[in-house]
Amino acid sequence: MEKLLENERIDDLEYKGLKIIQKQDGFCFGIDSILLSDFAKEIKKGSKVVDLGTGTGILGIMLCAKTELSKIIGIEIQKEMADMAKRSIKLNNLQNRFEILNENIKNISKHLKEGTFDAVITNPPYKKIGTGITNGNESKLISRHEITAKLEDFIKIANKLLKDKGTFYMVHRPDRLVDIIETLRKYKLEPKSIRFIHPKVNKEPNMLLIKAIKNAKAFLKIQPPLYVYEENGEYTQEIKKIYHKI
Amino acid sequence: MEKLLENERIDDLEYKGLKIIQKQDGFCFGIDSILLSDFAKEIKKGSKVVDLGTGTGILGIMLCAKTELSKIIGIEIQKEMADMAKRSIKLNNLQNRFEILNENIKNISKHLKEGTFDAVITNPPYKKIGTGITNGNESKLISRHEITAKLEDFIKIANKLLKDKGTFYMVHRPDRLVDIIETLRKYKLEPKSIRFIHPKVNKEPNMLLIKAIKNAKAFLKIQPPLYVYEENGEYTQEIKKIYHKI
Repeated sequence: MEKLLENERIDDLEYKGLKIIQKQDGFCFGIDSILLSDFAKEIKKGSKVVDLGTGTGILGIMLCAKTELSKIIGIEIQKEMADMAKRSIKLNNLQNRFEILNENIKNISKHLKEGTFDAVITNPPYKKIGTGITNGNESKLISRHEITAKLEDFIKIANKLLKDKGTFYMVHRPDRLVDIIETLRKYKLEPKSIRFIHPKVNKEPNMLLIKAIKNAKAFLKIQPPLYVYEENGEYTQEIKKIYHKI
Repeated sequence: MEKLLENERIDDLEYKGLKIIQKQDGFCFGIDSILLSDFAKEIKKGSKVVDLGTGTGILGIMLCAKTELSKIIGIEIQKEMADMAKRSIKLNNLQNRFEILNENIKNISKHLKEGTFDAVITNPPYKKIGTGITNGNESKLISRHEITAKLEDFIKIANKLLKDKGTFYMVHRPDRLVDIIETLRKYKLEPKSIRFIHPKVNKEPNMLLIKAIKNAKAFLKIQPPLYVYEENGEYTQEIKKIYHKI
């Protein structure tokens, strides 16, 4: 049993017996990570993957369970978070496949060889500095706002790490779509698929999943919408499936 | 009564008594023009507007009815189409507000003063040359494929014609979204609002409506989806409203 620090708890992921350590009052993983891991479950057997801004490690843990990737390296700038993710990895016996690097993603070239990864995945901070309500908790602030790295850094680094025709997966906010698309093109990651996530059928989307391929030809497929709730407030069938409830 | 040429017919627009002349076997207006005119019905009283690639004139006719614009100039490269649109304008008594220019949009600067229009609207050809099934009918070919002008030409010209903070409205295909966004940014038309049009609730979108503002700050709003059909194949309430059926 991994030791818990004060202010930590273990949550059951209710999938293949997986568990995760989270802070009681810190940044906890959300539906966005679960949806992103589902969106990326096509990652092929034997793939080498990097997760930029790993946080609790949720994405890597889910991808180890949902795919046959051979190795995923999670980059996390916050030491406490990185340590906690390492303990979650041990808790799930994933040490052979999931490794954590406590580093700023901007310094990643010191550690990882460029052009050698099959996939890069990220659930980056969504908000520009100075927009939205800034959170008093510094750890939450770094996880949610572009304090230590910006959207462009994430995309630029993904381009460096990926092999030719390697795949980039990201979850982000629709209000940043223009920046996302422009920046992906700038760094030769061609957007191939977007899925918008809507709280309900007649609501605007509040998240998007995007897949881009390095050096690919232009042709975008917008997927059918993903609706989270039915009109009566229950999860939709699709969300229940993603959460392995049915 | 305007004279009809051989192979022409008059269609009732079932709205405020409006009518339109169309070819029996040529390019007829579709739901895309109707949805675009509805999307742009916020155009303000007294506005000066340009419609790039007017075709039958449907957009201008609908906008004259739905808004209090003072003047709309429709640019149409095909002489026959331009003549037909002129006759539709007379048929609806819109000569004072809607004018047709038979010209390639690329030569527009010879005729119109740059930086003087409040809005530019367009339902351009959707397909790149060499993609999709090319249509034997030359007029349909020009209306559907980027033969005489490309997406970038439409956007570049819109930028020239618009005033500072002027608005650009376009209907297009989702598979071109990346090109659309990148090109709008390139020409300082900042995408502010996108609405995807889905045949049904669980289908991928097959059209998109986009609004961009010249020299505006970045912030995109993705609107709730617009669904065309109910599960039972009937038009949705929203489409019935747009078609003035309820």
